[in-house]
Amino acid sequence: MWVEQEIRQQPKVTARLIHEEWEEARRIVEAARRFQPALAVLAARGSSDNAARYGQYLLGAFAGLPAALATPSLFTFYQRPPRLDRAWVIGISQSGRSPDIVEVVQEARRQGGWTLAITNEPASPLASAAHAVLLLRAGEERAVAATKTYTAQLIALALLAAAWTGDAAMREDLVQLPEAIARALSTEEAAREAAAFWWRAVHGVVIGRGFNYATAFEVALKLKELTYIVAEPYSSADFLHGPIALVEPGFPVFLIAPGPTFRSETESLAGLLREREAHLTLCSEDRTLLALADVGIPLPPVPEWLSPVVAVIPGQWFAVSLARLKGLDPDQPRGLRKITETR
Amino acid sequence: MWVEQEIRQQPKVTARLIHEEWEEARRIVEAARRFQPALAVLAARGSSDNAARYGQYLLGAFAGLPAALATPSLFTFYQRPPRLDRAWVIGISQSGRSPDIVEVVQEARRQGGWTLAITNEPASPLASAAHAVLLLRAGEERAVAATKTYTAQLIALALLAAAWTGDAAMREDLVQLPEAIARALSTEEAAREAAAFWWRAVHGVVIGRGFNYATAFEVALKLKELTYIVAEPYSSADFLHGPIALVEPGFPVFLIAPGPTFRSETESLAGLLREREAHLTLCSEDRTLLALADVGIPLPPVPEWLSPVVAVIPGQWFAVSLARLKGLDPDQPRGLRKITETR
Repeated sequence: MWVEQEIRQQPKVTARLIHEEWEEARRIVEAARRFQPALAVLAARGSSDNAARYGQYLLGAFAGLPAALATPSLFTFYQRPPRLDRAWVIGISQSGRSPDIVEVVQEARRQGGWTLAITNEPASPLASAAHAVLLLRAGEERAVAATKTYTAQLIALALLAAAWTGDAAMREDLVQLPEAIARALSTEEAAREAAAFWWRAVHGVVIGRGFNYATAFEVALKLKELTYIVAEPYSSADFLHGPIALVEPGFPVFLIAPGPTFRSETESLAGLLREREAHLTLCSEDRTLLALADVGIPLPPVPEWLSPVVAVIPGQWFAVSLARLKGLDPDQPRGLRKITETR
Repeated sequence: MWVEQEIRQQPKVTARLIHEEWEEARRIVEAARRFQPALAVLAARGSSDNAARYGQYLLGAFAGLPAALATPSLFTFYQRPPRLDRAWVIGISQSGRSPDIVEVVQEARRQGGWTLAITNEPASPLASAAHAVLLLRAGEERAVAATKTYTAQLIALALLAAAWTGDAAMREDLVQLPEAIARALSTEEAAREAAAFWWRAVHGVVIGRGFNYATAFEVALKLKELTYIVAEPYSSADFLHGPIALVEPGFPVFLIAPGPTFRSETESLAGLLREREAHLTLCSEDRTLLALADVGIPLPPVPEWLSPVVAVIPGQWFAVSLARLKGLDPDQPRGLRKITETR
């Protein structure tokens, strides 16, 4: 099965990227710094857009840049693009072939913005359009559902953050990461246990916050693509502003909560969900938190800023296991092709 | 029933706002222009965050400003706020009391950014924190689910867009709008018809694009708050990048498609959904499009940039009707309070 093979390739793919593209990431950051951007704009679709969401937090936290996710229809349909002459515009696309993303990058360059493509395809229109390219070097991705190119995109963004700060400890964190990714592959069994509880579910929510807001989006997307469960992503704060009304006994919640920052918030959310008798799956390296869940998926501990790369892996296994339990073929999602061309 | 009364107040509330706050909106825009922002940052939660999404498109299209939705946890939890000294930061909150939103505005002001509060409460912490205040003047909102304060927030943002361009035609469009809002109230019956098809549904999707991406989020939120249906919002482009896999015969889709810009895209999406035998409810002023749906909800024609104010109304009725059909009290959503204080 391709998707399973590609999930297992992630330690190797990320290690290669961290070693081979570090110097390029440094050169890109030097050029970006010379440009003195007032903001960053990230343009992407699908899984790449989930990676962009991680980029929004990384660039804010480590480069001090306010970062926006692009609104491609202002460029393509309304033909009223905003002013991007002070923006560092980053297009992210595995294939480099999404016309709307290419258009955002082309327009930004026309206006005098500084543009970067993050892609797996050096010969793609996106790579040609941008001032600089950071290659994912993930090898061909054959499964329709992105896994190794998603984690590679996270790493590409993390390389930029580490290069921006120049902090040697961050670089070292990155070098250590593939080992933790390899350990995270062993969450397969716990993820299968969680899937056994979800196999009759027709919907559910996936919650993550801060750096792992992106992880919630990506796990929810994998569930929709592979298992046809209507899984909606939330930050825990947004979830409390309305959607908490959804929770009734047995309502399935997948909560992604690595790192110390949201520890006490996670604890009170888990308590609230238990009160309402939700079915709670929780991913964390913290044993006390894990004990609050119906199914706890232990994560290997990593620095919180890199935790999305590790925390998505049980979510990938979870979606694949659940697809199998439901008798679906994870390599053949209904009605999807590898490359979706939207305007 | 409060929520029903408040839905019916919308023509009056929006007319008052358009007349009484136009001069204030002009003064605010003058001050904002003097500041020469490189970008806008919109900070909000819940329904207000959906209004912010409309603001993101308005400010991009009419003020040429790249606009980001804020990432409050960078301010509150990580204490790594991005640089906002070149940003026009707009906090939106009905109550003006969401601590995380207040914190984003305070930090932006500390850094030298220019800040605006859009709120219904002149004496709130948010109003005190910002350089300027645009008041919603919506009267007390007693229902937990926001309706009239949501449309008032849209109008507040539209006033800013019209003031920024100085285009008299846009101002005139606004003056005419409350009449169209009054006509949109008569969608109640068609919305009830759609609700009859959804009453057994446990989940579904709500689709809108461009200016009406915000409407999709708001209608989905109303459904979750009032009917406990897991309703996920999408842009039609993002929907094709994965979640289209969800659609099987009978799958309920609520498609919001006013205005000419996405006409042909809507037509092909409706065709695709019919092929897969989805159950399609469609809101538009275009009769040909309406004929493609299982239930067509005709909208009064308005300029597309203002269509979100009108297009949300059948969505409000739809959520209220569906709640009633399910024997739920729309004024008492399970486990929600009017003011949610998150960090």
